[in-house]
Amino acid sequence: MPVIGDAITPGFLHEIRQKLNREDKVALLAALDDVHEADIAEIITLLSHDHRANFMRLVGRDIPAPVFAELDDGVRDEVVEYIDIDTLVATVQELDSDDAVFVLEDLDTQEQQEVLQKISASDRALLERALEFPEDSAGRLAQAEFVAVPPFWTVGQTIDYLRDNDDLPTHFLEIFVVDPRHQPVGVVHLSEVLRTQRPVNMENILHDDFTVIEADADREDVARLFERYNLVSAAVVDAERRLLGVITADDVFEVITEEAGEDILLLGGVGDENVTDSVVEAARGRFSWLFLNLLTAICASLVIGYFDGSIEQMVALAVLMPIVASMGGNAGTQTLTITVRSLATQEISALNAARVVYREFGIGLLNGILFAVLTGAVGTVWFGDAMLGVVLAAAMIVNLIVAALAGILIPLGLDRAGIDPAVASSVFVTTVTDVVGFLAFLGFATLFLLN
Amino acid sequence: MPVIGDAITPGFLHEIRQKLNREDKVALLAALDDVHEADIAEIITLLSHDHRANFMRLVGRDIPAPVFAELDDGVRDEVVEYIDIDTLVATVQELDSDDAVFVLEDLDTQEQQEVLQKISASDRALLERALEFPEDSAGRLAQAEFVAVPPFWTVGQTIDYLRDNDDLPTHFLEIFVVDPRHQPVGVVHLSEVLRTQRPVNMENILHDDFTVIEADADREDVARLFERYNLVSAAVVDAERRLLGVITADDVFEVITEEAGEDILLLGGVGDENVTDSVVEAARGRFSWLFLNLLTAICASLVIGYFDGSIEQMVALAVLMPIVASMGGNAGTQTLTITVRSLATQEISALNAARVVYREFGIGLLNGILFAVLTGAVGTVWFGDAMLGVVLAAAMIVNLIVAALAGILIPLGLDRAGIDPAVASSVFVTTVTDVVGFLAFLGFATLFLLN
Repeated sequence: MPVIGDAITPGFLHEIRQKLNREDKVALLAALDDVHEADIAEIITLLSHDHRANFMRLVGRDIPAPVFAELDDGVRDEVVEYIDIDTLVATVQELDSDDAVFVLEDLDTQEQQEVLQKISASDRALLERALEFPEDSAGRLAQAEFVAVPPFWTVGQTIDYLRDNDDLPTHFLEIFVVDPRHQPVGVVHLSEVLRTQRPVNMENILHDDFTVIEADADREDVARLFERYNLVSAAVVDAERRLLGVITADDVFEVITEEAGEDILLLGGVGDENVTDSVVEAARGRFSWLFLNLLTAICASLVIGYFDGSIEQMVALAVLMPIVASMGGNAGTQTLTITVRSLATQEISALNAARVVYREFGIGLLNGILFAVLTGAVGTVWFGDAMLGVVLAAAMIVNLIVAALAGILIPLGLDRAGIDPAVASSVFVTTVTDVVGFLAFLGFATLFLLN
Repeated sequence: MPVIGDAITPGFLHEIRQKLNREDKVALLAALDDVHEADIAEIITLLSHDHRANFMRLVGRDIPAPVFAELDDGVRDEVVEYIDIDTLVATVQELDSDDAVFVLEDLDTQEQQEVLQKISASDRALLERALEFPEDSAGRLAQAEFVAVPPFWTVGQTIDYLRDNDDLPTHFLEIFVVDPRHQPVGVVHLSEVLRTQRPVNMENILHDDFTVIEADADREDVARLFERYNLVSAAVVDAERRLLGVITADDVFEVITEEAGEDILLLGGVGDENVTDSVVEAARGRFSWLFLNLLTAICASLVIGYFDGSIEQMVALAVLMPIVASMGGNAGTQTLTITVRSLATQEISALNAARVVYREFGIGLLNGILFAVLTGAVGTVWFGDAMLGVVLAAAMIVNLIVAALAGILIPLGLDRAGIDPAVASSVFVTTVTDVVGFLAFLGFATLFLLN
């Protein structure tokens, strides 16, 4: 029974590696016997490439099918190479349709066709239909195994049907009530079936305020719906509103985690990188972000270069100028972060955007004044020049206000233009704060300190 | 029936505001009649402070209890001020215990006591016990309403018990089988109860490999467990392994969203800020982060100040030096982001840390060489000085390698020391890349270009 904290230990992993080195299949299977599918997937992920190949060659045919559904895409791609087509077919047939689709979608087209040809016609039809939906859609997330009954059935009839029918899914959370066109008219929670007397009709206990998701809906919207309405499952329908399948909470955890993680990675400039990517793949992915940053850093340098005469006259400007730019960059990033996060959780929308912009302006102004006083004092004391302190303070106020406005208006603008605000905002915001920071400080200095 | 995309429209919100201005309670309640509790909570959140106060004064007694559970903490704090103690008592009594605790934990101690005194002794005991668990613990998340039966009951007896007993929760996902000490020995999914013949004993269909969570476990660990093992619900037990309550998937969505969001906010230097915080609260929260950054920016300036003689001799150094620091900062942030994210999803652990450090070194070296060539060319062409280009290139390689190492070793170190790596890593990493960037560039220039 899994209890928090008893994940895979280094000792256990070491044991697995030793058995692999000895190619001791029997001992390996015995060690894995009580291990949860998700933990076997984790072990496979933690092994080196060579050990992984060995592992699959040795016990690939014997591990439970759900292990394949639990693997991360990158590792699954690799692992699928090591097993034969019959194991793949058996795996796909054993899994629920949503998990089977996970495994199938990663195969190349020829292999996918080969597997689909070898499974039963009814399963094939289900999977082919699911594969036709876009990759991040509700249609892909849904499993085609569910229980549906007509409204005029009694609770007793429903229970008898469930007891007598071996074809039904072993595990389900609710019963859908459908009309003759197979359109859902309501949903009955299993606890309600259990708590109701046998003669009562299903139509008398159904909820008609249940959630219906269209198959081509984006999975991110699906996740929001589950969060917002505290769902544990929801019906997925086709364009004619016919019941196609059901999405359950466990499918949604992964979506929520991945979508929230995507924003972190995008803001940090590492796009869709994964720790399992190779060095060259990762370096290539990060290169383009750094290259963009190089261009913007050169813009900032051009601004400085424009004031080279001033710096020559007063080297203290070169010493202090990074402070203004750095504070602006950080303040802008703060605003940007809260904006991107609030857009993702829909706490900011067209309904309150103006109020939030006003709020950020206020925060920028307030902190701008505070840091103007602080840095002004630093500049004055360090170089014994009160006017230098004033110039530093003035540049600081300007840059913190501009940072706040850039931090909110840039992501809001991108969002309104239909571009993911997490993607490009960061580089725009820091460019603005760098350029404005250097421009304001060196410009004010040139105007008021020199000549 | 909620369908994706039919959230609150600006028109509907406008309508609500008009009814509020007219103080038309009847029309307001009619408009809210079909609206889901989560959407009413959203409307309350979107209203201005004045409208919110009006709204609660007008219909606070009439809106469904779950609305209070759906509100964000900050808004709930405010809203609770506007309603009388009897409404609060009614709300707490109507909610499931986990949601009631949400509402109670935000009240001040005196008000909390007042509410607790006015509810039934059995409810009070449940809630007081829940409130004793730490704020982010499994004990707080769990609801005390669940169904438990002894192992020797038959399926038929269980169904009859469910049908005849009005005290049971209306909605549950599984039945716990408990021994005489009230320790869970297994779990039966409702679909299995429904699919099994009446004479079969519950002990014959129970799963004993179910998940048990200790009440003082951190809610972040609870979320990981749900994700990892695809749970829709899990039993919560006390220190004696007695069944206390159950956590369901819908409780966990919020945890996952919040925890992932926390990392974004911490990395961006905005801690636990919420868009509903006031300007002064938000500015105060962000001040400390910016202040820390000011101190590190001054460190970087001290490094530059040490080379003021060199800059006086060659102002091109001042123009180019931010490029080295900025590239290092970005490269470090990339590594840091992927590290923090992978630690949160447990893709990096003690089991593979060394491999990941080696990988980051490789990425830093590779991109260091590429950007050394690029920036070396820029420096040479811009200032017509090949040696300046070489110095820039050398500083770039050094700083990108240091950035990669800082970006992985700092968060790993903090994590090992038991400190959340998202909290403080960012400022350490950019300090390292600023200082090393200026030091390397100005240092190499002083050694090889001047004199």
